[in-house]
Amino acid sequence: MIVTPQKARFTQPLKLTSGAVLPEFEIAYETYGELNAARSNAVLVCHALNASHHVAGTYADDPDNVGWWDNMVGPGKPLDTNKFFVIGNNYIGSCFGSTGPTSINPATGKPWGADFPVVTVEDWVAAQACLADHLGIERFAAVMGGSLGAMQALQWALSYPARVRNSIVIAATPRLSAQNIAFNEVARQAIMTDPDFHGGHYYDKGVVPRRGLRIARMIGHITYLSDDAMMEKFGRVLRRVTPGFDFDVDFEIESYLRHQGDKFSTYFDANTYLRITKALDYYDPAADFGGDLSKAFARAQADFLVISFTSDWRFSSARSREIVRALLDNKRVVSYLENDAPQGHDAFLMDDARYFNALRAYFGNIAL
Amino acid sequence: MIVTPQKARFTQPLKLTSGAVLPEFEIAYETYGELNAARSNAVLVCHALNASHHVAGTYADDPDNVGWWDNMVGPGKPLDTNKFFVIGNNYIGSCFGSTGPTSINPATGKPWGADFPVVTVEDWVAAQACLADHLGIERFAAVMGGSLGAMQALQWALSYPARVRNSIVIAATPRLSAQNIAFNEVARQAIMTDPDFHGGHYYDKGVVPRRGLRIARMIGHITYLSDDAMMEKFGRVLRRVTPGFDFDVDFEIESYLRHQGDKFSTYFDANTYLRITKALDYYDPAADFGGDLSKAFARAQADFLVISFTSDWRFSSARSREIVRALLDNKRVVSYLENDAPQGHDAFLMDDARYFNALRAYFGNIAL
Repeated sequence: MIVTPQKARFTQPLKLTSGAVLPEFEIAYETYGELNAARSNAVLVCHALNASHHVAGTYADDPDNVGWWDNMVGPGKPLDTNKFFVIGNNYIGSCFGSTGPTSINPATGKPWGADFPVVTVEDWVAAQACLADHLGIERFAAVMGGSLGAMQALQWALSYPARVRNSIVIAATPRLSAQNIAFNEVARQAIMTDPDFHGGHYYDKGVVPRRGLRIARMIGHITYLSDDAMMEKFGRVLRRVTPGFDFDVDFEIESYLRHQGDKFSTYFDANTYLRITKALDYYDPAADFGGDLSKAFARAQADFLVISFTSDWRFSSARSREIVRALLDNKRVVSYLENDAPQGHDAFLMDDARYFNALRAYFGNIAL
Repeated sequence: MIVTPQKARFTQPLKLTSGAVLPEFEIAYETYGELNAARSNAVLVCHALNASHHVAGTYADDPDNVGWWDNMVGPGKPLDTNKFFVIGNNYIGSCFGSTGPTSINPATGKPWGADFPVVTVEDWVAAQACLADHLGIERFAAVMGGSLGAMQALQWALSYPARVRNSIVIAATPRLSAQNIAFNEVARQAIMTDPDFHGGHYYDKGVVPRRGLRIARMIGHITYLSDDAMMEKFGRVLRRVTPGFDFDVDFEIESYLRHQGDKFSTYFDANTYLRITKALDYYDPAADFGGDLSKAFARAQADFLVISFTSDWRFSSARSREIVRALLDNKRVVSYLENDAPQGHDAFLMDDARYFNALRAYFGNIAL
């Protein structure tokens, strides 16, 4: 499946949750399949921290660059592009094409950098609604995402209840725990205390806070995998014949983390990382309802599919059950799969049979 | 209880696991209570990452500096100094008085710094055996520790089976998991990539890698507390009236972590941190026995008390059960308490009634 990334430009200002205003913005997106005549078969896919609008397929000039959810989205796949018109989009504040800190600030003609406002999950969804308007989609057959993407899928059902028929919420939490925030804060501190950060104004200095990004990514990777999955994958296996009694790589896991950190630090924008983690921290749909998630969900009209993974300790199944319970309190139609998968949070990206079959069946039952 | 720290100096060389040799070394220690005439009432207390030989009491000139296990050790306390002669000691490689990277290398007349060898749990125990000789203690009534200290208590029973009557192993693991190593490695990388680290030779540069130490400590603190305990203690409570939409402190947990990191970075030595985490990573008493813990424990002669805490996800109860199982395979006398405490790994420092009563009873039953 060869795809072409596109950009939609919006010249109307976008008022953000913080009170700041984006005078104009762009959203990078891709589409897979065809929009039907009734415009009833559109599915919006929302990505997590490190991914982009490149959900599926490859580019003609870059055949190795496969979309991050290519196992899920395509002809004959669980989210079948023979039936559905699927849209991948890059949220604002990201560094993969949509307007973000690396974009040019029209007021200065230079990159926004540290001046780019802090955006929220609600802001992402509001910007995505502009994209939906642009594509002529009044109502989505489904909005779907995992992790941070699941927060967007959930928020769509709250921000635009009439525009979402199905909200598919995978490996989610309704709001971060103190421990979740703690991990984000350590990552931010690693970035912000990197001498190459320069208060976020590093673009014109010819440097990037690579050390900080590296640490942030290593911390992230630990939380994406379960203890058991990490033990299964890396164990206590040495990379050398005997321990080195120095600080070079001894264990496989060290090599893996250094490699992941190094790679990430070459392409990810630090100002984006800071803002994404903040959006995660702030997200709390119950905040305006005295912490009562049931009250917060009262305005939802969609049907819901909620999926969690038993080994996910970042956003445990207990957190998904909070969502399910609050939806049931509101008599929403909810399907819930608590999948017994070993991989931890990253399980949402794996083609586990039970998980994929559940999605295949769910999408199969959506009448157009 | 007023105590006075002491130092024992050893001029014989100490051959380390790595093959390196410490030409001479000192151990900082404190004692509480009196050694009885039979020299049968000595208890060695081993500390974890951030603590020292200052286990209990206060100093005459510093009454606010209370020992880290003062709730456990003293007259009438679970480890009752009316009955026992208790020894707190600082392991070698540390930065609180025993020979370590900040000590003077006799070969150069300058601090060892990066040249200080990587030491192991086995090395710590070998050095402590020299201290026991120095104090005229042939056999300990008990060797006791929590976390990293528990590894020492365990290793004592393996390195010197005839010299330990009781090994008290609290909040332990027989060897780190890949996830445990991963957290250590991120902390090390944060330190080693700090521009002020200078490859470990920062002493004569007038700087310390404070940024890296700060991050290391923040990561550590996350692993010391359970998700629930952190939620209970900090929740999603804001330090400001409303979210700031910037990168100052929003949530209580951020303030806590920054404070802990800042404080730690002012007094802890980075070269020590690197070496302690390496000692943890390397520790594996089963390594020479094909990974078989039961075979590894065959030489132990002590009785054992093993205590774990249900909410400890750093070293979970499952890891303590591995120790218990392997000891039972060898028909050792083992008491095991899996304590239902909410605080996570740090529970071993808290005066939980069931936990403390178990220790009080265990020590009460030790005949002298």
